[in-house]
Amino acid sequence: PISQDIDHILETQSALAIDLGGTNLRVAIICMRGNILKKYSQPNPHTFEDRMSLLLKMCKETMRDAVSLNCRILGVGVSTGGRVNPQEGVVLHSTKLIQEWSSVDLRTPISDALHLPVWVDNDGNCATLAERKFGHGKGVENFVTVITGTGIGGGIIQHNELVHGSTFCAAELGHIVVSLDGPECSCGSHGCIEAFASGTALQKEAKRLHDEDLLKVEGMDMKLSEPITAVHLISAAKMGNSKADTVLNKASTALALGIINILHIVNPTLVILSGVLASFYQAPVQQVISERALVSTQSTRVVASNLEEPALLGAASMVLDYATRRTY
Amino acid sequence: PISQDIDHILETQSALAIDLGGTNLRVAIICMRGNILKKYSQPNPHTFEDRMSLLLKMCKETMRDAVSLNCRILGVGVSTGGRVNPQEGVVLHSTKLIQEWSSVDLRTPISDALHLPVWVDNDGNCATLAERKFGHGKGVENFVTVITGTGIGGGIIQHNELVHGSTFCAAELGHIVVSLDGPECSCGSHGCIEAFASGTALQKEAKRLHDEDLLKVEGMDMKLSEPITAVHLISAAKMGNSKADTVLNKASTALALGIINILHIVNPTLVILSGVLASFYQAPVQQVISERALVSTQSTRVVASNLEEPALLGAASMVLDYATRRTY
Ligand SMILES: [Ca+2]
Ligand SMILES: [Ca+2]
Ligand SMILES: [Zn+2]
Ligand SMILES: [Zn+2]
Repeated sequence: PISQDIDHILETQSALAIDLGGTNLRVAIICMRGNILKKYSQPNPHTFEDRMSLLLKMCKETMRDAVSLNCRILGVGVSTGGRVNPQEGVVLHSTKLIQEWSSVDLRTPISDALHLPVWVDNDGNCATLAERKFGHGKGVENFVTVITGTGIGGGIIQHNELVHGSTFCAAELGHIVVSLDGPECSCGSHGCIEAFASGTALQKEAKRLHDEDLLKVEGMDMKLSEPITAVHLISAAKMGNSKADTVLNKASTALALGIINILHIVNPTLVILSGVLASFYQAPVQQVISERALVSTQSTRVVASNLEEPALLGAASMVLDYATRRTY
Repeated sequence: PISQDIDHILETQSALAIDLGGTNLRVAIICMRGNILKKYSQPNPHTFEDRMSLLLKMCKETMRDAVSLNCRILGVGVSTGGRVNPQEGVVLHSTKLIQEWSSVDLRTPISDALHLPVWVDNDGNCATLAERKFGHGKGVENFVTVITGTGIGGGIIQHNELVHGSTFCAAELGHIVVSLDGPECSCGSHGCIEAFASGTALQKEAKRLHDEDLLKVEGMDMKLSEPITAVHLISAAKMGNSKADTVLNKASTALALGIINILHIVNPTLVILSGVLASFYQAPVQQVISERALVSTQSTRVVASNLEEPALLGAASMVLDYATRRTY
């Protein structure tokens, strides 16, 4: 019957999704329903030339897989660290996490190599698009995603669309300032929420406590060989380490005040926390909002993302949403 | 000739503009070009009934003036303190500055009394609309207005339209938090920029210095009888009072960090400072932005408003813009 034929077409229409992160370069085939049909990962090379040639090589190989998997690739979506001009498909500027990655036109070489349309946006915006299509943001007109990983990033949806800002610098949520002084930040300023609440900031505090022999508490499982991370700080606090608890309270408060600033500026209905620390931060952030936000924003919901691959899914969604709009 | 006839029509098409503030209730006739043809002011009554009856009385009197001035009133625009649902023309909630001013439908009684369409928005949003039509915001797609008066308010224009937010609580710019602790704020939280940099906050600091006999410096003109205000703090600092200078530096820094947070969230091209303290804050705010904002937002322009009656002009603009759209 005809309806089954249409189902079959929907199943196999797919996107090539690329995630260019600080550590890895990944390429995946993702279908209309958000399933990842194939995924490759390689260490992200440190020079522009090596990175581009590896990227194109991985794309071409993945395209051959697509043929054997009976997937029709509608286009290429790229999630990358840094500031991006999505209209031009250009990476404007990156921090030192990705080297030699400023003023890079990604659209032209990928499009030339694969003969497909190419969309590019930064990782924070892609994670937000992933929530809009596949996650808690589905059908929500105004929401914000805050990603707490190594750094802090995010994206803002207003009237169902991303806010990019006049110089593509909107939703630089890690650099919301919540202290006149405060710890130094990677951006050169100080008192940014990234400097209080990112994985790197917590790791720094964990190491400091560890060096003073104040981190490990009785019964805590911690091997001498393993590197100290935020995870140790969280388990120490759970097992009664009051110094670890104080550090985490300050981090949670700083993050929550940053999010309150978002509520008082754009007033979304929903805040989605994403990244490795999301489930830890969810409850304390909701608590501080209920205490310190304006009454009419106090009940703004805070949830932890349930998506496994937000950057790849968001990269794919740029392709799939455009294809959906055109085709159906 | 026909062109002169059209000029004549434009000249006389006007709006009835109402400004409901903490102190005064004002009604004005404002023409298409932004000239205030007539203006009345009365102390704003403290009860709901007295306020509404005075408001309607002043409106009717002003409508009679409109006839004698040969002005065609196209509608009524209301600027009010508090949080407003502009779709319904309802004041949802006000702070103690305007008493008995929650869940107030302004559209129905005014429209019933005058047989005219009625638009309502809060003072911060109206001041921003005034900038869009008559001020520095003319033709600017993305800008923000920050009003430093008794409190701190403002409005955000994105893609040429106001951002109201999901519960009409966007652009509550006074309650952007820039300190984990910081001074208590009228909203019940602490560390908000209003608690650092509003006229009230500066007045409090000026009084504190005055009580300790630390405010007045040699050669400073200050009568015993006059109340101590932010103005005294500013002139003391200018004449070399280092304590006054320290207070003002902290206030400027707090305000600037609040504005940096706006830049990192919505990334406008222009920041317009409005209100009595605007010209004082313009230079230090621009300076702190150039030091502590992300590189790509460091050059965001900060200007002081040149409008004399932003609330009334903005109230009028809601009427005039709608009329313009429909008629021409
Ligand atoms: Ca972002
Ligand atoms: Ca406002
Ligand atoms: Zn920063
Ligand atoms: Zn406040």
